[in-house]
Amino acid sequence: MFGTKDHLRAEGGDLTIDGVDVVDLADVFGTPLYVTSERRLRENARAYRKAFPEAEIYFAVKANGNLAILRILAEEGLGADVFSAGELNLVRMAGMAMDKILFNGNSKSLEELEMAVEAKVRVSADSRDELLNLSEVASEMGEVAEVAFRVNPDVSAMTHPKIATGLKTSKFGIPWQEIVEVYRTAMGLEGVKPIGLHCHIGSQILDVAPFVDAAAKMMELAGEIVDIGGEIEMMDFGGGLGIAYAPETRAPTPDELAAGILPVFLEGCKRLGISPQMVLEPGRSIVADSTLFVTGVNVVKRAHVNFVGVDGGFNLLARPMLYDAYHHAVVANKMDQEAVGKYTVVGPICESGDVLARDRDLPEVERGDVLAILDAGAYGFSMASVYNGQPRCPEVLVNGGRAELIRRGEDESAFLAGQIVPARLLR
Amino acid sequence: MFGTKDHLRAEGGDLTIDGVDVVDLADVFGTPLYVTSERRLRENARAYRKAFPEAEIYFAVKANGNLAILRILAEEGLGADVFSAGELNLVRMAGMAMDKILFNGNSKSLEELEMAVEAKVRVSADSRDELLNLSEVASEMGEVAEVAFRVNPDVSAMTHPKIATGLKTSKFGIPWQEIVEVYRTAMGLEGVKPIGLHCHIGSQILDVAPFVDAAAKMMELAGEIVDIGGEIEMMDFGGGLGIAYAPETRAPTPDELAAGILPVFLEGCKRLGISPQMVLEPGRSIVADSTLFVTGVNVVKRAHVNFVGVDGGFNLLARPMLYDAYHHAVVANKMDQEAVGKYTVVGPICESGDVLARDRDLPEVERGDVLAILDAGAYGFSMASVYNGQPRCPEVLVNGGRAELIRRGEDESAFLAGQIVPARLLR
Ligand SMILES: Cc1ncc(COP(=O)(O)O)c(C=O)c1O
Ligand SMILES: Cc1ncc(COP(=O)(O)O)c(C=O)c1O
Repeated sequence: MFGTKDHLRAEGGDLTIDGVDVVDLADVFGTPLYVTSERRLRENARAYRKAFPEAEIYFAVKANGNLAILRILAEEGLGADVFSAGELNLVRMAGMAMDKILFNGNSKSLEELEMAVEAKVRVSADSRDELLNLSEVASEMGEVAEVAFRVNPDVSAMTHPKIATGLKTSKFGIPWQEIVEVYRTAMGLEGVKPIGLHCHIGSQILDVAPFVDAAAKMMELAGEIVDIGGEIEMMDFGGGLGIAYAPETRAPTPDELAAGILPVFLEGCKRLGISPQMVLEPGRSIVADSTLFVTGVNVVKRAHVNFVGVDGGFNLLARPMLYDAYHHAVVANKMDQEAVGKYTVVGPICESGDVLARDRDLPEVERGDVLAILDAGAYGFSMASVYNGQPRCPEVLVNGGRAELIRRGEDESAFLAGQIVPARLLR
Repeated sequence: MFGTKDHLRAEGGDLTIDGVDVVDLADVFGTPLYVTSERRLRENARAYRKAFPEAEIYFAVKANGNLAILRILAEEGLGADVFSAGELNLVRMAGMAMDKILFNGNSKSLEELEMAVEAKVRVSADSRDELLNLSEVASEMGEVAEVAFRVNPDVSAMTHPKIATGLKTSKFGIPWQEIVEVYRTAMGLEGVKPIGLHCHIGSQILDVAPFVDAAAKMMELAGEIVDIGGEIEMMDFGGGLGIAYAPETRAPTPDELAAGILPVFLEGCKRLGISPQMVLEPGRSIVADSTLFVTGVNVVKRAHVNFVGVDGGFNLLARPMLYDAYHHAVVANKMDQEAVGKYTVVGPICESGDVLARDRDLPEVERGDVLAILDAGAYGFSMASVYNGQPRCPEVLVNGGRAELIRRGEDESAFLAGQIVPARLLR
């Protein structure tokens, strides 16, 4: 019923996740709710480790910043790609090894660079200016920061424009034509030690070809750097592998990605006589399909189309609204019922764009039903806001037939946090 | 220099807001930072009160949920349009009168309806099903809830599709063809008292004509309701008036809106022999231009175009990314310098869409410069998230030459709030 997602089943009319009844979870923890399968998460991590036994896998924390989830990935031997001081703190709390962290980002503050140097994590420099900033900061601290360079390879990956990051027009990275010059600059600077190259061409990419193109370009650039006497200790090919959101989609597996890029990497290394650490930075393909977004039905309206009004909106799951993304939706308490017609599932937010699922064949939907939105683990909770006075919901981890709360939901006090009303206004 | 925005000036090379130096504010409070002019806020509220002396003005809290700002608007005699239990709590805390509140929303939970009934605020029902839910809840509580009906007038307002809410395909409201029948149903139900009609056709509308169309349709429907013996005590024409984000744009004033819709309303009332309370629900046009988003420059990159990397991204100001919205940007510490070229201002978030301002003529920009993004008071902080480990920034209120902190910025603890790591994972 759910393709390769064998953590999901229909049992006795209800949806279960690793044997735990999703309708029961909605009862106990309330809706909206995020529910993660620990087993699936570990399997996804292991699939990468098996496909790339020699590589380091740095989980992209932006996809999911839950500490329990990060802790599990640390147990599986993963490191992390962090994009801010905040994300660095999270992975520290999760007990990730500092030598498996890359501090990324296109606009790091001096404070963030300082923090990275202090924590002795490697930094990916996004521009020549940033390299100079890093050199300045590290020298002042009497340290030498290991630095890789984010390359803009100008490779087109067929994905949504907002998340295609490898085109020359994107804000990310150093144009590939300038990389060698920047590397040369770095080799002469105090406080920095250039160690390699980094790229990330986009997200939700369903084809291995652009990864191969990017890898080839990266190995070519590595060669030019070797030619000027530069050392290459690390080659980071980024994240971006897509997943099958729609039942009819087929996404490449980590094995297939490996079959595409490993030969390019290994042959390149051999040709250049280098043996850098290979790094990958998957986010979505590790965590997306491990997690359901569970939301309760408040109201059904028969208008131009049949609208199902649920209690979770784009403040909690922004992808459909932001990227017109498809997420599969099922009625978790009616898994044994036939579809009776088309429904459009809408959240409680005050914008027409707050539509979670459009024109779906569902069984008869009524108030009190529980909907499960699949593949919500990546860029779900991590993008959540309290827009429209909607508190952020709890997160639950399912493991061995049990459910554990891993993030408490907020209440109304969330909107008051930090607010100060000047006394003169309190007459 | 800033058109009608006379709270903004260039003085001694720096931008000032009501006489307070924005560069000093960035120094004292740090960046990113939201800064609001109390004077401008009050002027905007008064412009509505003057243009519509007989109407109630319900501020749309979704646009800005800061308590100090809500308190000021309460002082100016405004009520509120709330869209959730969370927003209702906010306006209670701000001391707004409960008889000036309308509880809106297209997907209210039973708990929210209960809360509305308990607080004795009026409810706008979005569908027949919701009317039944309200009747059920109020009857059980032994109360009678005053209810208006959100009409979908099927009026096209030229605005961004995500915020055009008055088309028949939108998720909002009861199709106008069904309003009379729903009203008739309500007249026979326990626990509810139908009191009128409500519409809201969209946001950032720069033309008075669609408001006039909608008002005409609303008065026509009011007539049909009077014909079946229904009473009309309230007519709510929603919000939606646009503002001039770009210097060359001209937005209608509240006076011009009044010139368009007041005659339609008054003539309709006379013709029908009714004297309902008129209500408007402006959000953006009250608060947007009162507020700057101030952000510091981390890095400048000369690539395909000149990128200015700042410390505030779409997690704090989502409009450019969400709606391709234009916000005017100036270098607050270089107001006396000539533009030297085109710059694209980008935030620190890991998506190509995180662009605050594209291809702008700015003076030479360097690290440490302070940028001010104009008209950020509506749908700015209220949509903020902590995506990418970026904490939410402080808010400051400027009044009589002084600046007061009205919301503390978050620190890294924001990402930990509510998180629980099961002990078994903490080996
Ligand atoms: C630098 C970098 N690495 C890795 C990722 C993770 O991408 P994905 O979740 O598509 O694997 C991102 C996503 O934006 C990124 O910006
Ligand atoms: C019902 C309702 N009323 C009022 C508003 C406020 O609109 P604006 O900020 O454009 O005035 C909105 C905005 O979404 C709304 O949904």
